[in-house]
Amino acid sequence: MMSDEEPLVRKYSDSGITTLTLNQPQSRNSLSMAMLEALSGELEAIASDADTRVVVLAAHGSVFCAGHDLREIREQFDDQDFQLALFHQCSKVMQQIVSLPKPVIARVAGVATAAGCQLVASCDLAVAADTARFATPGVNIGLFCSTPMVALSRNVSRKHAMEMLLTGEMISAVRAEEIGLVNRAVDEQVLDETVYGMARTIADKSGHTLKVGKEAFYRQLEMPLAEAYEFTSTVMADNMQANDAREGICAFLEKRKPDWQDS
Amino acid sequence: MMSDEEPLVRKYSDSGITTLTLNQPQSRNSLSMAMLEALSGELEAIASDADTRVVVLAAHGSVFCAGHDLREIREQFDDQDFQLALFHQCSKVMQQIVSLPKPVIARVAGVATAAGCQLVASCDLAVAADTARFATPGVNIGLFCSTPMVALSRNVSRKHAMEMLLTGEMISAVRAEEIGLVNRAVDEQVLDETVYGMARTIADKSGHTLKVGKEAFYRQLEMPLAEAYEFTSTVMADNMQANDAREGICAFLEKRKPDWQDS
Amino acid sequence: MMSDEEPLVRKYSDSGITTLTLNQPQSRNSLSMAMLEALSGELEAIASDADTRVVVLAAHGSVFCAGHDLREIREQFDDQDFQLALFHQCSKVMQQIVSLPKPVIARVAGVATAAGCQLVASCDLAVAADTARFATPGVNIGLFCSTPMVALSRNVSRKHAMEMLLTGEMISAVRAEEIGLVNRAVDEQVLDETVYGMARTIADKSGHTLKVGKEAFYRQLEMPLAEAYEFTSTVMADNMQANDAREGICAFLEKRKPDWQDS
Repeated sequence: MMSDEEPLVRKYSDSGITTLTLNQPQSRNSLSMAMLEALSGELEAIASDADTRVVVLAAHGSVFCAGHDLREIREQFDDQDFQLALFHQCSKVMQQIVSLPKPVIARVAGVATAAGCQLVASCDLAVAADTARFATPGVNIGLFCSTPMVALSRNVSRKHAMEMLLTGEMISAVRAEEIGLVNRAVDEQVLDETVYGMARTIADKSGHTLKVGKEAFYRQLEMPLAEAYEFTSTVMADNMQANDAREGICAFLEKRKPDWQDS
Repeated sequence: MMSDEEPLVRKYSDSGITTLTLNQPQSRNSLSMAMLEALSGELEAIASDADTRVVVLAAHGSVFCAGHDLREIREQFDDQDFQLALFHQCSKVMQQIVSLPKPVIARVAGVATAAGCQLVASCDLAVAADTARFATPGVNIGLFCSTPMVALSRNVSRKHAMEMLLTGEMISAVRAEEIGLVNRAVDEQVLDETVYGMARTIADKSGHTLKVGKEAFYRQLEMPLAEAYEFTSTVMADNMQANDAREGICAFLEKRKPDWQDS
Repeated sequence: MMSDEEPLVRKYSDSGITTLTLNQPQSRNSLSMAMLEALSGELEAIASDADTRVVVLAAHGSVFCAGHDLREIREQFDDQDFQLALFHQCSKVMQQIVSLPKPVIARVAGVATAAGCQLVASCDLAVAADTARFATPGVNIGLFCSTPMVALSRNVSRKHAMEMLLTGEMISAVRAEEIGLVNRAVDEQVLDETVYGMARTIADKSGHTLKVGKEAFYRQLEMPLAEAYEFTSTVMADNMQANDAREGICAFLEKRKPDWQDS
């Protein structure tokens, strides 16, 4: 998964915030099978890493992520098993982000296209430099962005998703903010300040509470209303029995800072 | 449910519009078990009150509703049955709003947080003073807003919901309007004019038609497309047999005002 | 379905783009049973017409479409079989647009109300003149827009849909753009330029790819996340075996224009 020199994905942790950086700028951080496996491995490790409370997903170079590696795909045109394995691996990584028990924030500078746009859509939060751009351009090369649209269409409304998918055209970060693909488009000068400010805010919460909440969020989204309420009522009653809820409520009523135990 | 002096929820009806006002400003209109039971009782009464065509949900004081009563919860930390009963009761009230056969408009001045924000999200329509603010800050006290997010995530897109839930931070009324949590943010001076103007417009429709439409709206939302069309085609054909549809269509074609019988 | 003179729906094809024009301005292009049958017939023909790559749905006259034909409905008040057949036929046409294996763009000038608004919501994309207006005013005539809301509520958020449905009031094209009912509201002077520019962009893609992608888009929307990924992974692996994907990928890597075979 790593060369002797530079890893495909760099990892850096500080004060509970782990940054994963796609590190193949020479191939526009494309999601080759090797890159997907590296990313999957890092996410798996982070899932059980008690020191990581929040993940920032970033990229090295002027392209955030260009989607699949078309050279690799061309080399394997006749190996349908490889193709299917590739899309399964990619879908697995996207779902690992969603099921990771820690919030993931995309930090987007540059261009995010196809499965790269899907990465952004799959994160819980996303902040983009106002120079960033987004597209699902598979339709331009005869390969519709069918897996990317799973994430895209769960972030933005139908007509906005369809415009990106059918025209394949780039949208600006400002437009991405308008339609809900990213939370904020900010001046590139304050991108890190914004991303890490948000990450810090979240990392200061109880890790247990974040885990409980994120997991319940995506599960209840797929339920009818009555079932969602039945499910989350139980989640809240259980959450209430946790040390951190008791500590948090007492601290609030006593007007002091809570001391989280992450349990 | 009521003290000898002031009721927990005040009720005022005029010309088909019933206003329910949360009336515990001293405890920031928090949703104690008593408040939830009072609200539930009022909604149940309104459901079968032929004189009420539209409900306005308002609040007395500078806080619209601060969510659950944390003092009450702290007193019952070890009574898990109480906790579960509380969240069930709260979820019941939210669903009573959705299933009430009359439109409900939230009139929001001040701060609406946690289950208070959920109340706003659960109403069919919401108008806020531009000074109002919204948050789902449970994460700050170790108790993730898991039931509030059921309503929130059915109003706004995923990334917007997640930003509120994970950061716990306040958003302005203007931002709430942008993301779809409220229909309009207006100058506080015209808040009542806007809310009651909208209520009047709706109260002048056929009560039967409003009932049929609101019920069908939430049911079809949870169906796949083909099933939703099958269901609503039947709803429309039935609606057509109602006196008010015949009266409404004739009045329209005869360029006169309809005379509703609410049947 | 056609008179000796003017057809109910005009059809014009040029360079892969077929424009269907509602052609009953004298009755505000209302969706009478005859109009719905004409539209259904045209859509069925287009589904298997190899020369059509993109459809533009337009209207002749100052009203895009006023919804059902109330005079026709009044004449048949007592024929419940007719009513049900009418709503079924209407729902069929809306679903034909969704299931048509070619993108459909609504070109909206003037007013689109009730089932006319639903037509716009049912198209994959919509561009409106900034003078266009939209409403679901059934509630004003005692007949709630229950079938139109199926399409509307799958385009815009709940509170926005409910405001239109409960008040019955007109919204501007600019507002329709803000809430996601149309992709763009443009100066009437550039409406055709915008619509046909978008249609051209899409018509230049592989017809096979558009078919695969549009069909998968609406199917995956109704699936839970894991199922949607399983389904679309297979769709992409199959898509990869198509001539146009290989041609498109090779053309991209060789920096030349692709030569689509639509297979």
